[in-house]
Amino acid sequence: MSKNDKLDVDDYRVKEGTKFSLKDYPTEIKRKEIDKEEGEFLLRKDVEELSALQDVLYADKQHAVLIIIQAMDAAGKDGTIKHIMSGVNPEGVQVTSFKTPSSTELDHDFFWRHYIVLPGKGEIGIFNRSHYENVLITKVHPEFILNEKHAGIKSVEDINKSFWQKRYKQICRFEKNLTENDTTILKFFLHVSKDEQKKRFLDRIDDPTKNWKFSAADLKERAFWDTYQLAYEDAIENTSTKEAPWFVIPADEKWYSRYIVGKIICNELEKLNLSYPKISESERVALLKAKETLLSEV
Amino acid sequence: MSKNDKLDVDDYRVKEGTKFSLKDYPTEIKRKEIDKEEGEFLLRKDVEELSALQDVLYADKQHAVLIIIQAMDAAGKDGTIKHIMSGVNPEGVQVTSFKTPSSTELDHDFFWRHYIVLPGKGEIGIFNRSHYENVLITKVHPEFILNEKHAGIKSVEDINKSFWQKRYKQICRFEKNLTENDTTILKFFLHVSKDEQKKRFLDRIDDPTKNWKFSAADLKERAFWDTYQLAYEDAIENTSTKEAPWFVIPADEKWYSRYIVGKIICNELEKLNLSYPKISESERVALLKAKETLLSEV
Repeated sequence: MSKNDKLDVDDYRVKEGTKFSLKDYPTEIKRKEIDKEEGEFLLRKDVEELSALQDVLYADKQHAVLIIIQAMDAAGKDGTIKHIMSGVNPEGVQVTSFKTPSSTELDHDFFWRHYIVLPGKGEIGIFNRSHYENVLITKVHPEFILNEKHAGIKSVEDINKSFWQKRYKQICRFEKNLTENDTTILKFFLHVSKDEQKKRFLDRIDDPTKNWKFSAADLKERAFWDTYQLAYEDAIENTSTKEAPWFVIPADEKWYSRYIVGKIICNELEKLNLSYPKISESERVALLKAKETLLSEV
Repeated sequence: MSKNDKLDVDDYRVKEGTKFSLKDYPTEIKRKEIDKEEGEFLLRKDVEELSALQDVLYADKQHAVLIIIQAMDAAGKDGTIKHIMSGVNPEGVQVTSFKTPSSTELDHDFFWRHYIVLPGKGEIGIFNRSHYENVLITKVHPEFILNEKHAGIKSVEDINKSFWQKRYKQICRFEKNLTENDTTILKFFLHVSKDEQKKRFLDRIDDPTKNWKFSAADLKERAFWDTYQLAYEDAIENTSTKEAPWFVIPADEKWYSRYIVGKIICNELEKLNLSYPKISESERVALLKAKETLLSEV
């Protein structure tokens, strides 16, 4: 038995209906059985497996896979996507990064801009930030909700606890409709410590090739750290379901968080028992007829 | 000087305004300097380079890249995309495969469904089939044009030479607008022989994991081989421009066509002289101030 087999990714899964606190989930590596070199090697193995699984997913065309990645700034969202999904055929993968909504998007319900880019059957869709921002950044800055021009909401005082509870339920309904219609949903929170974010921000300031990744606005949001953590706790507690689970990933070591996320995605895709489409008897007859036609060409 | 340096990818570029005949372009490997093993090794090198170039393209956010892949069935479109683009961060790559248009799509001009998925700045967009189908499959089967319900076109007899000439010009205009607005366009025709297609069809029939790739309709289209070749010749001759060139790639050997396409994409991206965004003096001051704030945190 290799060290790898000891890893129980369910350690990172948030069970439905339980009280959830981020403090119970580490930002650092819990188990020290593997080191960076081994972790990177195992990730490469998983990426190869993922590439093979995606080939069959694409051919099979029975399931869609939606991967949601949420985190504080500099927690490694882009790097995770890059390291896990580079190596997978981009023909079946679509990454969408959600930024500030446009006025057209704000004219629609908050799911709309996400709905129109959901993965189709055979595809893996990755949301870099997602519909969850509607209970995260907007919870920290409720004045953003006013841009949505809800009937009955005239000021931030109108945005009360029941407003957020309603949103969590809407999100669960939205996701239930998807999972009941053959979409596998996996939600990852890359859990980084405030200290580690500081280190990474300083690195972005000091390294000229990373300057473009940093903006003064990032520092402003950092000032809301605790409020964000609470918003994440609430959101995860209220929306982690058996069908669409949240995984809280220790993200202070990039190689480790990538390894865990890759492992979870592989495990979950394996559970789909994918296989290349089998053809029916009449299709087999048609194939053999086509073969005959080809072979008898002059 | 390695053998590799001898490769002149311009051999495969179709010069603007010259008479074009597919017969002048081989489907087989012209130069035998490299073998399969070396070709696959060089492709891996180019994929690594492409991955690095795409990183900078994404950060730089000044250029979009549109790669168009056209070919007869089984010429290797999907495989080319898979082998060249697996390894590149899918966050900056979007592959769109165009199949039979929907009725909503037919209600719009024929560019519309392609326009709405064009790559943005910093992105690589890959069209697996493209707006060119509107002068290819529709030229072979002009009855499909009737679905577009053009004023003045009541029967296939109304679809004359000037109709196609107009379309070629429309395509050139469309592409000119894109290239003048910072999109690099590279168009590849994977040139496969009729014999090689036959071999690959037979393989798809004989190999159960490939059965799903074959349909009896493929054989029907094969019967129009010569008409398709003429349609390709016309289209390529009329739309290969300096800014949006066609490359005609020998495609009877998959490893070779992938190697050449990868090499051309790398070469063309290098010409963009991409670099990580430089920050202005005032942005530098803001960065240093942010650094101070971070370091003085308690």
